[in-house]
Amino acid sequence: MPLDLNSDLGEGFGPWKMGDDAAMLDIVTSANIACGFHAGDPSIMRRTCGLAVEKGVRIGAHVGYRDLAGFGRREVTMVPAELCDEVLYQIGSLDAFAKAAGDRVRYVKPHGALYHSASRDRQLADAVLGALVDYDPELALLGPAGSQLEQAAEAAKVRFVGEGFADRAYTPAGTLAARGLPGAVLGTNEAVTQAVSIAMSGTARTVDGSGEVAVRAASICVHGDTPAAVEMARLIRTALDEVGVPVESFG
Amino acid sequence: MPLDLNSDLGEGFGPWKMGDDAAMLDIVTSANIACGFHAGDPSIMRRTCGLAVEKGVRIGAHVGYRDLAGFGRREVTMVPAELCDEVLYQIGSLDAFAKAAGDRVRYVKPHGALYHSASRDRQLADAVLGALVDYDPELALLGPAGSQLEQAAEAAKVRFVGEGFADRAYTPAGTLAARGLPGAVLGTNEAVTQAVSIAMSGTARTVDGSGEVAVRAASICVHGDTPAAVEMARLIRTALDEVGVPVESFG
Amino acid sequence: MPLDLNSDLGEGFGPWKMGDDAAMLDIVTSANIACGFHAGDPSIMRRTCGLAVEKGVRIGAHVGYRDLAGFGRREVTMVPAELCDEVLYQIGSLDAFAKAAGDRVRYVKPHGALYHSASRDRQLADAVLGALVDYDPELALLGPAGSQLEQAAEAAKVRFVGEGFADRAYTPAGTLAARGLPGAVLGTNEAVTQAVSIAMSGTARTVDGSGEVAVRAASICVHGDTPAAVEMARLIRTALDEVGVPVESFG
Amino acid sequence: MPLDLNSDLGEGFGPWKMGDDAAMLDIVTSANIACGFHAGDPSIMRRTCGLAVEKGVRIGAHVGYRDLAGFGRREVTMVPAELCDEVLYQIGSLDAFAKAAGDRVRYVKPHGALYHSASRDRQLADAVLGALVDYDPELALLGPAGSQLEQAAEAAKVRFVGEGFADRAYTPAGTLAARGLPGAVLGTNEAVTQAVSIAMSGTARTVDGSGEVAVRAASICVHGDTPAAVEMARLIRTALDEVGVPVESFG
Repeated sequence: MPLDLNSDLGEGFGPWKMGDDAAMLDIVTSANIACGFHAGDPSIMRRTCGLAVEKGVRIGAHVGYRDLAGFGRREVTMVPAELCDEVLYQIGSLDAFAKAAGDRVRYVKPHGALYHSASRDRQLADAVLGALVDYDPELALLGPAGSQLEQAAEAAKVRFVGEGFADRAYTPAGTLAARGLPGAVLGTNEAVTQAVSIAMSGTARTVDGSGEVAVRAASICVHGDTPAAVEMARLIRTALDEVGVPVESFG
Repeated sequence: MPLDLNSDLGEGFGPWKMGDDAAMLDIVTSANIACGFHAGDPSIMRRTCGLAVEKGVRIGAHVGYRDLAGFGRREVTMVPAELCDEVLYQIGSLDAFAKAAGDRVRYVKPHGALYHSASRDRQLADAVLGALVDYDPELALLGPAGSQLEQAAEAAKVRFVGEGFADRAYTPAGTLAARGLPGAVLGTNEAVTQAVSIAMSGTARTVDGSGEVAVRAASICVHGDTPAAVEMARLIRTALDEVGVPVESFG
Repeated sequence: MPLDLNSDLGEGFGPWKMGDDAAMLDIVTSANIACGFHAGDPSIMRRTCGLAVEKGVRIGAHVGYRDLAGFGRREVTMVPAELCDEVLYQIGSLDAFAKAAGDRVRYVKPHGALYHSASRDRQLADAVLGALVDYDPELALLGPAGSQLEQAAEAAKVRFVGEGFADRAYTPAGTLAARGLPGAVLGTNEAVTQAVSIAMSGTARTVDGSGEVAVRAASICVHGDTPAAVEMARLIRTALDEVGVPVESFG
Repeated sequence: MPLDLNSDLGEGFGPWKMGDDAAMLDIVTSANIACGFHAGDPSIMRRTCGLAVEKGVRIGAHVGYRDLAGFGRREVTMVPAELCDEVLYQIGSLDAFAKAAGDRVRYVKPHGALYHSASRDRQLADAVLGALVDYDPELALLGPAGSQLEQAAEAAKVRFVGEGFADRAYTPAGTLAARGLPGAVLGTNEAVTQAVSIAMSGTARTVDGSGEVAVRAASICVHGDTPAAVEMARLIRTALDEVGVPVESFG
C-alpha cells in the first residue's frame, strides 16, 4: 500500500520565518499550508503554493483558530456555526493561491488546538466538515483515525485519510501518548522504525513497550521546524523507499 | 442604457454592525462585500452573500488594506507584489461564501484608501488587476472611469465598469470635488437629480455650477450606513424607475 | 451603605460604535474601559478616559482575551503566565490614557469569557491578580462575590469589590441564572426592584420565586448598549437616590 | 564623551523569534523594546524587560505603526491625533512590564516606517512628542539628529538623543545613503571604524569617499538579527572600549 507523507508548511508570518519549506517539499507528498489564521500571510501562501506545485506536492488547507499570537495552539471556544465560517474562509483564501499556482486545494487538515478539539467533539468536527462540503465535497479530510473527525467525514460522505505520527509513541488504546510522559517523543531511529512499521503492518509498538497497537494511517506527519526534524523526515522517506513502500499522495 | 446600483455591504465586524444591509439589498443590483481586511468577518460574509443571492444581487469582492482599526481608509504603503497577494487572498475568501450561497464573486471593487491609491498609481492598479486575473480573468473591475484602474483593466483585457456617485459633486475635470469644499456633498434631492442625469445623459453639473461635465458611469454607488442614506438610495432607485432607466446589474 | 454603579464603556473599535458612553457616564460612578483586546482602540480609550475624568467617574481597566472578532466572549485556553502578561499589557495601556486625562486606573475588572473563566478557575484568577499586583497592589479588583477571583484577591491582599447584577436573576445558590432559563433576564421594573433590594438588604429574589438569596455587592453593573438599557440604568440610579442609598464609587 | 549603544530587541511574536536578545543585552546600553504593534507580545515584553533590568540596560519604548504583517515597515497614513494615541498606548503597555521588572521606560524611539515619516514630517513628529509628554515629559526621545523629531523635541522641551549608524554610509548632507546605492551598507571593519570615528570626532566618511561629514550622535544603533550582526556589535563595543570611549547609557 502506498503511503503519503504530510507536513505543516508556510508557517511564517510577515518578517518571521518557520521551518525549511523548500527542503520539506522535496521529501513530502502533501503540504498542509497555513491560511493566515494561526500562521501564514498572503505572500507566504503564494510562495508556498508555488513551490508545492513546482515540486508536485499536493496542497491542503491547514485550517486553525484565528489566533496568531497563540499559533493556533490555544482552543477558542466558539459555536459550531462560527467555526464552520472561519474554516470556510480559510479554505477559500488558500485555494486562490493554489489556483494562481495552477492547482487547487485537495484536502483539509485542522491545525493545533482545532485538530484536538474537532477530533474530540462531534459538533466541532461537523462544523469543519460543513465548511469542507460547502466549498467542495470532493476535498478529502486528513485527521486521526478513529476520531470524531473520521466519523463526521463518514457521515458527510467525505473521503477521510487517517494520519499517523512517526515520532510520537502510541498508547495501547491507539491514541498518542501525552507529550509529558516518558518515551512519548521518539528519537530519530525509533521514528524511522515506527514509520516503516505503520506503513508495512499498520501497527506501532506501544509506549509502555507491552506490545503493538493498530495505527490506521494512509499518511504520516513529519516535521520541518528544525534541521534535525528535516533530517528525520528525510531518513523516514529513505527508509520507506528502501523497504519498497511507494511514497505518494493519497488520491 | 441600463444602470447598475452598487453599495458597500457586510461592513460590520464581530459584535459591531454597520448599515442596513437587508434594506440596501432590496435597492441595489450589485453588492460590494467586505472580505475581512477592512471590515467583515466570516459569519458576516456568509450572511451577506446569502442575502445577496436570495435577493438576486450580484456579489463583488470589496477588497481593502488589512487595517480594521482604520477601516481601510488609511493608505498602507506596500510593494505591488504584496498588494497583489493581499487582494487575491480577499477574493478567494469571499468566493468561498459566494459558492456556499450558490453563486460566485463576479467583480472586484477596491475600497477606501486602496480605491484612491490604485486609481492614481498604475503599479498599484496593476497589482489589483494581477490578483483579479490570477483568480479569474472573467471577473469585472468596478472603479472610477478615467483612472489608472481603468487603464490597468484595459491592458489586462479585463472588463471595466465605470462608477459614478450620486451624492458627490464633480469638478469641471470630471473628478470628485474634495469633501471639504462647499457643495461637495449633495443633499437628497440633488443626489436624485444627479443620478438621473448620469443615467440619462452621462453628465453631472459641476460643483461650481459653471456647467456640466461628462461622467461615464455604468454603475452608481449608493450608501446605506444611515437611515437617511438608505432613504436616499431608495429615492434614487425610484427616480430611475420612473424615468425608465432599467436598473440592473452589469454583465 | 453607599453603592457603586459600574458599566462597560469604550467598547467601540475603529469605525464601529457601541453604546452611549456619554449618557452612561452621567449615571455610573465606575467606568470599566476596554483596553484594545476585546474592544477599544487608542483613540476611543483616550476619549473615554477624558470623559470619565470630566464627569468624575472612576476608571477601571476592563481586561479581556485578545479576540476582537469574538468580543472577548470566547474563552481562549492559555497557561496562567501568558494570561498574566496579557492582562498586565492591558492595564498599562489604559493607564497611559488615564494619566493623560489627569487620573489613573483605579481597579481591574475581567471582561466576558475571562470574567467567567477566572471566576471559576483559581489559577486563572491568580494570573489576573498577579498582573494587578505587578502593576500596582493598590488597585482594586471588581468581580463576583464568592468567586475564585475573590479568593485570589484575598490571598494577594488586594481589595476586592463584589459585583451584583440588576437585570439578571439569581439562583438559590447565589449565582446568576443561565441566560437561557425562563425569567433569567429581568425587565426594567424588576431590575430596579432588584437593585434597590441588593443595595438595601443585600438580597435578591431567586429566579424560581422560592425566596431570597444573599447578594454581597458593593457595586452593581448596568448596561448602556441600547437606549432601553440606558433608560434602565437611569431608573436604577433614580430609585437608589430616592431610597437614600448614596451612589458613589468604592474607595 | 560617553557613547550609548542601542539595539532593537523583543522583536519576536507568538511562536516566532527574531534576533539574539540575550547576546545583545551583554553589548548594548539601551534596549529599544517592541510594544506589540509591529512586533512583540506581552510575554516577550515581560521577558525582554526582565533581561534588560538584570543586565542593567536602559529600557526604551520602540513604538511603531500597528502592522504586524508589515513589521512596521509600511507607512500607514493617519491623522496626527490618531498617531499620538497609538504611540501613547504603546508606551503605557511597555511601561507596565518595565515596572514589573523593577524599572521603567526611560525613552521613546520610533520604529521603521514611523522613524522615517516622523523624521520628515513635523506634524507626525509632534504627535510622537505629544504622546511622550502625555506620558512623562522626563522621557527622552531617540532619533536622527537634524530631523523633524529633533525639532519637535526641542519645541516640547524634551531631551533629544541623536542617533548614528555604524553600518550605514552617510551622504555629504549628513543623511543616510539609500540602501540601494553602492557602498551604502558597510562591512564589519568599516562599521567598526565608523563607530569609533563618530564617537571620537563626531564625523563619518561620506559614501562617495569625498570627505567627512558631521554626525551628531550620542547613541549608535547596532543590530542583532543575525549571528554576523551580533558579532559586528561586539566588535564595535570592543573597539570603543579600546580607544577609551566610555560606553554607557545616556542620562
